[in-house]
Amino acid sequence: MQQTATPRVEDIAQYMQELGRQARVASAALRRVDSGRKNAALEAIAARLDGARPALAAANRDDLARGRENGLSDALLDRLALTPDRIDAMILGVRQVAALADPVGQIDGLSYRPSGIQVGQMRVPLGVVGIIYESRPNVTVEAASLCLKSGNACILRGGSEAASSNATIAECIGHGLADAGLPAATVQIVATTDRAAVGELITMPQFVDVIVPRGGKSLIARVAGEATVPVIKHLDGVCHVYIDASADLDKAVAIADNAKTQRYSPCNTMETLLVHADIAGQVLPRVAAIYRDKNVEMRGCPRTREWVDDALAATPEDWATEYLAPIVSIRVVDDFDQAVDHINTHGSQHTDAIVTENLTLARRFLGEVDSSSVIVNASTRFADGFEYGLGAEIGISTNKLHARGPVGLEGLTTRKYVVFGDGHVRS
Amino acid sequence: MQQTATPRVEDIAQYMQELGRQARVASAALRRVDSGRKNAALEAIAARLDGARPALAAANRDDLARGRENGLSDALLDRLALTPDRIDAMILGVRQVAALADPVGQIDGLSYRPSGIQVGQMRVPLGVVGIIYESRPNVTVEAASLCLKSGNACILRGGSEAASSNATIAECIGHGLADAGLPAATVQIVATTDRAAVGELITMPQFVDVIVPRGGKSLIARVAGEATVPVIKHLDGVCHVYIDASADLDKAVAIADNAKTQRYSPCNTMETLLVHADIAGQVLPRVAAIYRDKNVEMRGCPRTREWVDDALAATPEDWATEYLAPIVSIRVVDDFDQAVDHINTHGSQHTDAIVTENLTLARRFLGEVDSSSVIVNASTRFADGFEYGLGAEIGISTNKLHARGPVGLEGLTTRKYVVFGDGHVRS
Repeated sequence: MQQTATPRVEDIAQYMQELGRQARVASAALRRVDSGRKNAALEAIAARLDGARPALAAANRDDLARGRENGLSDALLDRLALTPDRIDAMILGVRQVAALADPVGQIDGLSYRPSGIQVGQMRVPLGVVGIIYESRPNVTVEAASLCLKSGNACILRGGSEAASSNATIAECIGHGLADAGLPAATVQIVATTDRAAVGELITMPQFVDVIVPRGGKSLIARVAGEATVPVIKHLDGVCHVYIDASADLDKAVAIADNAKTQRYSPCNTMETLLVHADIAGQVLPRVAAIYRDKNVEMRGCPRTREWVDDALAATPEDWATEYLAPIVSIRVVDDFDQAVDHINTHGSQHTDAIVTENLTLARRFLGEVDSSSVIVNASTRFADGFEYGLGAEIGISTNKLHARGPVGLEGLTTRKYVVFGDGHVRS
Repeated sequence: MQQTATPRVEDIAQYMQELGRQARVASAALRRVDSGRKNAALEAIAARLDGARPALAAANRDDLARGRENGLSDALLDRLALTPDRIDAMILGVRQVAALADPVGQIDGLSYRPSGIQVGQMRVPLGVVGIIYESRPNVTVEAASLCLKSGNACILRGGSEAASSNATIAECIGHGLADAGLPAATVQIVATTDRAAVGELITMPQFVDVIVPRGGKSLIARVAGEATVPVIKHLDGVCHVYIDASADLDKAVAIADNAKTQRYSPCNTMETLLVHADIAGQVLPRVAAIYRDKNVEMRGCPRTREWVDDALAATPEDWATEYLAPIVSIRVVDDFDQAVDHINTHGSQHTDAIVTENLTLARRFLGEVDSSSVIVNASTRFADGFEYGLGAEIGISTNKLHARGPVGLEGLTTRKYVVFGDGHVRS
């Protein structure tokens, strides 16, 4: 971990290029570091964080005080806070990443070709990863751990609100890397809060292989719009549950409830419920009673409102809106095809579920819904790295190329071809 | 296959958007088409091409005559020519793609999680592929076949030199698609040679999921520089063979010969030979004798020229040049580390080989050389889709994200998560 003095604004391009150059050098060194040493560095970082609890708490108090002065909302202050529990979770997170299998070097499909050469594909680090994020300081530790374990150097650009917390975390990471004998530039923090630094970071393909923005939609849209480096991202999570006429009623009600109300802010929370017309009379009254009970505002199509008289009228914008709030839009559809068409038209290719006991429709849904996670008879809320068994995730991608869905260690690697011969030449 | 009347220049944006819209519709329909029907369409296209030999020959004669009038070079005229042998190869190519395994729908890693849900990853088409290429009309057939087999709609933009040949091929493809009952917009040809059409095609991410440019470096650089759609590409093939002191001499000489001289124009041909100082005196005179015999111009570092007195002095530019010609640059290096450093500094991350009998160095080379193909004891010329067992390739990628190395059917697909539950909700 390396932190230099805050650069003057006019030097930001040069400063960022220098971070990039150093990251490239560290990245080359990381190709020679085995799993054991990477894990030792993660363990050292965990120990350093554990030993720095008073310093972390003090730094975080500074950030919170400054945040209050600057009139940050309660929600933002909450995200910023490093409570003792969150520090525990942060340290546990590093140890969990150490415990994950190392994808680097894994060779798949090695097989002989008619020419006599042997061909396979080997997982290797991407190289240098740039992470741009907002107020939550624990992202600093999470991102650094995942990049380190996957053999990537990283350049981290956190939010200005968390500057003191991030600086203290950075020190712990720096000491941990040094304890394990890894290059300081393995993890670098951008030491300026000037927004121009982001502009540089996302337009240096010679130094940075991929950008992962974590934060609100406006941040991600800005990064994606201006970047010349590939961006792993999703903009929206307009997720659907479709209850077919062939659904088991109890499963349908439980999933419609859980997908909306288990938590309101995650990107994999359902925003629109689609219900087959033939089953609407059985499903909607039960589901509406639950939503009513939990103070979820319902916005429905005309047929929905026949069954749920306190639902507001949904507008066309509702079908494309990620509420991130206790609001749900509900539409009654004529059939399976209309449901799939609705999802592919209005959705964000994030996570969509069907509830059905019909095998043919389940199979069709998997094939025809073009989303990063497609789910049969389970809540959309399962779409994350821990639930899928990836361990921690660096983000969720709705990109088509490279990683799609929750992105863990594997998404921070790429595969190259390896070929073995015994003096083989091509004829 | 669909071809509309040539649009007026001022309507090109609208025309391209319309192609895009129709491709999206076809792409959704293709998600419901099984392997058997895709193969039937490929077989029908092959039959239509077979039945159109006189028309293909006539159209190609037109292109060649126009090319000669316009002063095309002999090399370009050769690429443009559809000889009977090449028509045979084109038809055989379609049938070979039909015979390849269909990657779409393949589910990997399906396994139960502690929550009880079952999670796996399913291969699905990318959606809509845009291909931009130059004079060789057989690319029209190759690209259309690979996209169709992988379930993608495609928009093809060929060179103006091949306009008549491409139009006749397009007719065959269109009839073949109709024979099999597939949508005409599965394969669309851009019916204008106006360059503005390319500018539109590469900046419609709402309609096109990936662009594959095939042609010279200037075309690819332009496309990559201006595209807002992801581009699967490589710019340069500055490929290396490194002969370590631990090499078997006969293997080293055979590989240095083959990698350079088997063909001069492919991107996987070696451009720079690196030789360990300790073995230079044994390797260089033998290799130089072969190159001399084959009229390969040698450009060497000072130590090379001690052993090869007719070698010209290499300049710094030589180390970064893809000659695509009977020219080779040669450098004597101090050791393995200097060789790897040379490759990672001056190479193009395309294809690089080591000749060694030393297991440790072979393993290090695989890990430390950051190229899309890394080869031990075989010629760089093996780096292509057929030799690797992918079947036909749509191109070679030196991108880090998504497909790297030769790109076949699998590179035209992506993986999404599929989840099965039995009414599971998240607690």
